[in-house]
Amino acid sequence: MSKKISIAIDAMGGENSPTKTIEGINIFVKKNISNEDFLLNIYGDEKKINYELSKFKIPHNLIKIIHTDSVISDEESPLTAIKNSKNTSMWSTIKSQVDGVSDISLSAGNTGVLLVISRMILKMIPKVSKPALAGLWPNQNSMNVVLDLGANIECNDTNLVDFAELGSALYKSLFPNDKPLVSLLNIGSEEIKGTETLKKAYQKLSSLSNEKNFLFKGYLEGNEIMKGKTNVIVTDGFTGNIALKTAEGTAKFITENLKDTLTKNLFTRISLIFSYFALKNFKQRLDPRKYNGAIFLGLNGPVVKSHGATDSLGFYYSLDLCYKIVKGKFMEQIKNNLSHLESD
Amino acid sequence: MSKKISIAIDAMGGENSPTKTIEGINIFVKKNISNEDFLLNIYGDEKKINYELSKFKIPHNLIKIIHTDSVISDEESPLTAIKNSKNTSMWSTIKSQVDGVSDISLSAGNTGVLLVISRMILKMIPKVSKPALAGLWPNQNSMNVVLDLGANIECNDTNLVDFAELGSALYKSLFPNDKPLVSLLNIGSEEIKGTETLKKAYQKLSSLSNEKNFLFKGYLEGNEIMKGKTNVIVTDGFTGNIALKTAEGTAKFITENLKDTLTKNLFTRISLIFSYFALKNFKQRLDPRKYNGAIFLGLNGPVVKSHGATDSLGFYYSLDLCYKIVKGKFMEQIKNNLSHLESD
Repeated sequence: MSKKISIAIDAMGGENSPTKTIEGINIFVKKNISNEDFLLNIYGDEKKINYELSKFKIPHNLIKIIHTDSVISDEESPLTAIKNSKNTSMWSTIKSQVDGVSDISLSAGNTGVLLVISRMILKMIPKVSKPALAGLWPNQNSMNVVLDLGANIECNDTNLVDFAELGSALYKSLFPNDKPLVSLLNIGSEEIKGTETLKKAYQKLSSLSNEKNFLFKGYLEGNEIMKGKTNVIVTDGFTGNIALKTAEGTAKFITENLKDTLTKNLFTRISLIFSYFALKNFKQRLDPRKYNGAIFLGLNGPVVKSHGATDSLGFYYSLDLCYKIVKGKFMEQIKNNLSHLESD
Repeated sequence: MSKKISIAIDAMGGENSPTKTIEGINIFVKKNISNEDFLLNIYGDEKKINYELSKFKIPHNLIKIIHTDSVISDEESPLTAIKNSKNTSMWSTIKSQVDGVSDISLSAGNTGVLLVISRMILKMIPKVSKPALAGLWPNQNSMNVVLDLGANIECNDTNLVDFAELGSALYKSLFPNDKPLVSLLNIGSEEIKGTETLKKAYQKLSSLSNEKNFLFKGYLEGNEIMKGKTNVIVTDGFTGNIALKTAEGTAKFITENLKDTLTKNLFTRISLIFSYFALKNFKQRLDPRKYNGAIFLGLNGPVVKSHGATDSLGFYYSLDLCYKIVKGKFMEQIKNNLSHLESD
């Protein structure tokens, strides 16, 4: 039997934890009970965790609880939180990767603090210029990987090329049968468009693309992100963050207006009787909880950040993402993608 | 009787012109026939224009046709097009503003060429650092002005402050009773977030805001653009273009999926009988044609760019926007906003 997939979970981060984290764990265990190829290392207040666990029937061989005394609070300033982070549930979660106990970490705690202490503990992969925060974004066919979503507000061409390598490794771990198509987010599709940084990254990616594990498709405009013509979308953290949040805001605006429209009078409420199941499917497809989990890439081990405000189902999806990333041998994919740097 | 509002129209630019431009003009005239406070100067191929006009009953005192021999084609490279632009319908349209014949220009032709020749002919307003392309963006209450949408891919803090002045003048010309609320697009709402350029612009706008014709509200994140908490959203042209196109792509993705959902089987098609009128209202509210028209600001005269691919109704909305901008005394609003620069 091959080695089990070990996932370190910060049970205490985010709103309504550890209730929601343990509920999310329960959903995950129920769906994967037949696999039995995983071990969940749960970090946090042992008493609270055990109380939540007592509500479910989770086999003891699939989980391990490691008690930690303190938690990083969302009220603290990031600087104070980082200073006091040692031996918190978040710290111990990440630390377990260095100790060889876990393959990946998951937390719904403070993003800024998580990025800083992950980098402190796990350290950067040699020759990777900057780490990046990647996300999953639904598209017409399936989903894209988009990065950076906010770890680096200013990026040079080397950073963007590294993001292409990291992002395509992530995509390949999630969709092992595909050769990832990589695009650079820009304000036009012609080669002459965009900033000098983008033009340089374009040149570098064009020459790398043939020999590598991905195919560079050139520039992509904002309106094409969801068309499903590409798999990995590379941008700087400022632009990526604005694009992601603008898309979220637009989706919310439209779906809320639609909801108001379809509940506004007797006729529309009758219409819902006939369209109920179809609209339920529509809603499920766009459910942001399905895409929950930003992946911190470029360190000597992957770290997944769940949205702090998500519920147990959202937390489940980010845990499932962790499982898939390790199962898809993400760290090996990265090593393959970066092998050309060895000879530099 | 006060001076008439004179609008110069390039009848030849964009797809399916002059058919759609003249149809759009006809819609405008029908809606404003009782006002009679405007004159439309129509530039282009006189024969073709007259043929299209013959389909409608437009009073002769409301329009004037000025023949031009050539048209800027979308097939030409921007550089060649600019070189050969003199005496085209687009050139003559803009030129009429310098000649004192028109107050504003409207074209659905090539954007890049329009920006360059507008700047050549109209010249920059003294002390404005860069011109900007502004757009109207729907929100929960009404609409925002967002700028820059792509005229300048890199901007410094002075440019952003100028955009705030130009954008709030535009907003005030469209909504005369409001004191515009201005926000800077950023990746977080705290003062310490974002690039150095944004932080400097934040400082300058904070000190300007009290004495001026607008109120600075600080930073705004991408997901808040459509919440209706602000009126003018300022960003660089790269970010603005990505945000706008990402929002368009997201809206298209959702509405197309919704359409598929509601037509997929007998039950959903029955539901449409009951929700038909409500959904029609919903669709109309989000109709991108209603927000057609990007406004080029910072020159000695406003220029409006209609989407090239829009239809006659979309062209009508951009013409209506021209009318409102002049009626709202946009150039006077700019002068007021920039008066503090006189003493610098």
